[in-house]
Amino acid sequence: MTALSRRGMLLGGAAAGAGFAALTACTPRPDEQLEDALLDVGSDTVPFFGEHQAGIATKPQAFATFAALTLRDDADADAIRRMLQVLTDDASRLTQGRGALADTEPELAVTPARLTVTLGFGPALVRRVAGASAVPTWLKPLPAFGIDELEDRWTGGDLLLHVAADDQVTVAHAVRMLLKTARATAVPTWRQSGFRRSRGSEEPGTTMRNLFGQVDGTVNLRPGDDDFASGVWSEEGWLKGGTSCVLRRIRMDLDGWDRLDTPGRDQAMGRRQSDGAPLTGEHEFDEPDFEAMGPHGFPVIPDFSHIARARGDDPRPTMLRRSYNYDDDTVGARDGEITDAGLLFLAYQRDVDEGFVPVQRRLDELDLLNQWTTPVGSAVFAIPPGCQEGGFIGDTLF
Amino acid sequence: MTALSRRGMLLGGAAAGAGFAALTACTPRPDEQLEDALLDVGSDTVPFFGEHQAGIATKPQAFATFAALTLRDDADADAIRRMLQVLTDDASRLTQGRGALADTEPELAVTPARLTVTLGFGPALVRRVAGASAVPTWLKPLPAFGIDELEDRWTGGDLLLHVAADDQVTVAHAVRMLLKTARATAVPTWRQSGFRRSRGSEEPGTTMRNLFGQVDGTVNLRPGDDDFASGVWSEEGWLKGGTSCVLRRIRMDLDGWDRLDTPGRDQAMGRRQSDGAPLTGEHEFDEPDFEAMGPHGFPVIPDFSHIARARGDDPRPTMLRRSYNYDDDTVGARDGEITDAGLLFLAYQRDVDEGFVPVQRRLDELDLLNQWTTPVGSAVFAIPPGCQEGGFIGDTLF
Ligand code: HEM
Ligand code: HEM
Repeated sequence: MTALSRRGMLLGGAAAGAGFAALTACTPRPDEQLEDALLDVGSDTVPFFGEHQAGIATKPQAFATFAALTLRDDADADAIRRMLQVLTDDASRLTQGRGALADTEPELAVTPARLTVTLGFGPALVRRVAGASAVPTWLKPLPAFGIDELEDRWTGGDLLLHVAADDQVTVAHAVRMLLKTARATAVPTWRQSGFRRSRGSEEPGTTMRNLFGQVDGTVNLRPGDDDFASGVWSEEGWLKGGTSCVLRRIRMDLDGWDRLDTPGRDQAMGRRQSDGAPLTGEHEFDEPDFEAMGPHGFPVIPDFSHIARARGDDPRPTMLRRSYNYDDDTVGARDGEITDAGLLFLAYQRDVDEGFVPVQRRLDELDLLNQWTTPVGSAVFAIPPGCQEGGFIGDTLF
Repeated sequence: MTALSRRGMLLGGAAAGAGFAALTACTPRPDEQLEDALLDVGSDTVPFFGEHQAGIATKPQAFATFAALTLRDDADADAIRRMLQVLTDDASRLTQGRGALADTEPELAVTPARLTVTLGFGPALVRRVAGASAVPTWLKPLPAFGIDELEDRWTGGDLLLHVAADDQVTVAHAVRMLLKTARATAVPTWRQSGFRRSRGSEEPGTTMRNLFGQVDGTVNLRPGDDDFASGVWSEEGWLKGGTSCVLRRIRMDLDGWDRLDTPGRDQAMGRRQSDGAPLTGEHEFDEPDFEAMGPHGFPVIPDFSHIARARGDDPRPTMLRRSYNYDDDTVGARDGEITDAGLLFLAYQRDVDEGFVPVQRRLDELDLLNQWTTPVGSAVFAIPPGCQEGGFIGDTLF
């Protein structure tokens, strides 16, 4: 149901002037829809403490900033622990709508808007704190792929700050506070910001659309599903309850994509842009039929389509894709183009070599979509588990 | 009243589980607050056609992108008219939640989220269409100010597209459609994006805060006030019903500002950061008393403070300030700094030389705030009046 019709029902279909009286006249709705209609974008909070860090199984917020930092040469395990303790304290306050301890603009902290702060560790940080043996085998730069055109300015990092909320002022303020806290120990190397639809502006259903117009995130590990926990959360040593995060900055050639007609677009994906349904189905969540043949004896879902290639032999998803759109203000980034836009592609899985890498290898070999997409940044982080009050994010590593 | 307490009242103070039943039990609220609580961020629309262009007297949306274009050398009056006609058609559709005529991603257009598209003309465009005599005397680069450190990449422009909505996907899509329409006639030269609090995440009252944490926009021309129309809308020739727009990109030195304590910050402004009240008052909208003296015989509101200098002799506001925060992903823009943030300062007035310029001259001479703010971009546009169905934005110029 769209927000419009939801309001229509709540207001008994009457014009705004009918006001409160109409409310009492309308049909009862399930609690959740009512909650949704009575939107408090600003005051909503996500708990900070817990078994897992927030910001992964959390329903994606409208804005996210990812900041990568490089450890200073003299930052030893003690300095890193102190930094993580203060970052944890900052995050535990800011996410609940309170200023950080040394907050110079506490006025900007009063609207948490589902703020989450998720910390990630690059290999150098893990090594410096706990030695080479503590570094998971998959925590390293990804193998080089043929499609990659990586730029240093979007690649690597020792510490990840992933800050997301439904309000961009809240994100800006939190990012700044956290970077200030980290400053003595680590310096920023890159920052990337992305967006989805605003809270209260989502389309029916929850799957977001990317800037190609596609429904993106249909076949996915979903919080609540049976396979989510085993696919996402690690069971290994200090990382138990944590996960891994792959961030790929993927430039999308919107101008080139424009030159493709609708059937061409749908063939490249194996799904319809209009409603996200597989070419062999009616609805977004219909199971694609990769065996179905068209009139000319070719598969209805082409072998070279993104979904045919991404899936491989086993239909079960191996990662949580949780991406954000980006659309930057740079003009003339490439000659004649009018946009620098794409996807901050985010994948979470308990093991990068089981989750992301095999899929990316297949797509690297063949995927019609590659013609319009180019990875320009790449980073891999270990996401430590959550912590309880009194602990700090990363404490299992010490 | 905060959103939280509004929801608290609507839900009768009960926990979410109480659901619909609680609604019927609660005290009636004024229509407007009810409307606000029943938020439809996505489906809300702002009318496109009318006496004035939308996007100026409109309550500011959460996101705005300003794109400046330069006319191609061969773009004559005919080409410009055709471009404006199609831009008008695009805008009239997109703002009402429909795809543009040649829309390749109409799926992204379905949530207008109060989208407005406001067109502005630089001097070159006006001259090419209607000759030098049609160019208002104030439509030219601003006089050089001592504080300016302008960069070409944020300065000037022949055509302004000001696109704003409460949803950033909507803004990204609309900007792209409009730039594609303009492409044959004009090429983008810069693009700047800013944000305020999300819809449903605003603080009590309507005045926004900037990234210094200050309440910004208190003393202002306000839609609905007596002086608004005469201060903002032009009465002159083809511009009757239109206005002027000054866009200054002003970098804010957040790191430097951090080194100032609260009294220092409040003295620089003449108002308290905490609640926006003048140093001589209790509440945000109290009239500042510039004559009041402190214990040491100095004015309570320092003569060098921003509000003392901005005001001058006449207390009546001469412009509509309608600014957006920016916080860009560039890292290390200046050595050792961790943010590239500031204000997209927007001022609308019927005449730039009466509204903006005298104030900026005073602030240029003396304003303590100058120590932490630097104009790095500058542009002036004539904003033509609105149009009726069948007409197009700018038609009074032809
Ligand atoms: C800009 C680049 C990309 C775009 C625009 C894109 C878009 C899409 C879309 C529209 C779908 C179909 C709907 C869905 O199930 O979500 C999809 C499916 C999928 N994509 Fe991508 N994708 C991109 C890059 C990647 C990358 C880099 C990977 C991983 C290496 C990936 C892995 C997958 C997987 C696993 C599926 C589900 C396939 C299945 O049905 O089993 N995608 N993608
Ligand atoms: C980043 C730069 C700036 C910041 C952070 C800033 C901030 C503020 C704040 C916090 C106030 C007090 C609250 C209010 O009345 O809105 C104010 C007032 C004002 N500002 Fe600014 N401002 C900036 C630049 C400018 C510029 C460039 C102009 C025009 C040239 C300007 C004109 C005014 C005016 C006219 C007032 C109202 C003064 C009065 O009380 O009569 N400001 N500004």
